[in-house]
Amino acid sequence: MIARAKWLNRIKWDEHGLVPVITQEVGSNDILMFAWMNRDALARTVELGQAVYWSRSRKKLWHKGEESGHFQQVHEIRLDCDDDVLLLRVEQVGGLACHTGRHSCFFVRFEHNDGQPDWIDVDPVLKNPADIYQK
Amino acid sequence: MIARAKWLNRIKWDEHGLVPVITQEVGSNDILMFAWMNRDALARTVELGQAVYWSRSRKKLWHKGEESGHFQQVHEIRLDCDDDVLLLRVEQVGGLACHTGRHSCFFVRFEHNDGQPDWIDVDPVLKNPADIYQK
Repeated sequence: MIARAKWLNRIKWDEHGLVPVITQEVGSNDILMFAWMNRDALARTVELGQAVYWSRSRKKLWHKGEESGHFQQVHEIRLDCDDDVLLLRVEQVGGLACHTGRHSCFFVRFEHNDGQPDWIDVDPVLKNPADIYQK
Repeated sequence: MIARAKWLNRIKWDEHGLVPVITQEVGSNDILMFAWMNRDALARTVELGQAVYWSRSRKKLWHKGEESGHFQQVHEIRLDCDDDVLLLRVEQVGGLACHTGRHSCFFVRFEHNDGQPDWIDVDPVLKNPADIYQK
């Protein structure tokens, strides 16, 4: 089993057997999303060359794009100095990473607003989510 | 107390009262590091305009750069679609975010190496860590 491969041992998996993953778009260097992987997810990601995460809510492997067609082609995988965070550099098929139909999940900006600080949606919805997931 | 401010309630703090934080350099869009914040750390970050994290190992606020002088000037704070991950866009004073003397903490790359996959350090050390922290 590839999920037992030696290179997976370098990573410091947390108490749930997971590692946080930052996903960045090659070219723009935009941060697209943040998710988690377990050993199987990372092994499968390497095998497929497409991002496979661990869904903590659904408690199962999540091949990103399996419903929307918005797969993430992996160009590079990096690990941080503490061996406990992964950086995935990907090409985002369809240009949309967020389930809201936006390019990136990080579309909410903190604004000071003259002493009334608040969080404001600043990036556009590029595609109606109903059209993304309708098949 | 600013740490009780209403805008902090938008964030879904985890069971330890923390939120993961991705730190990205403005301009290059390079990902510099990954860390955690609690309410006090984020409130202090907004107040100072410089990144203040929560050190999980030392269990105290960590004003990044307090020992090295490598402060992070915050240009923008973003939140993701699930309200549970922050993105900090910063100017990295000194150009070094990593305690190893590198620009970014993500300097370890996964390489296939003809069926012998391994993790390889690929980015240069720009400054000797002993010189960074010696005061």
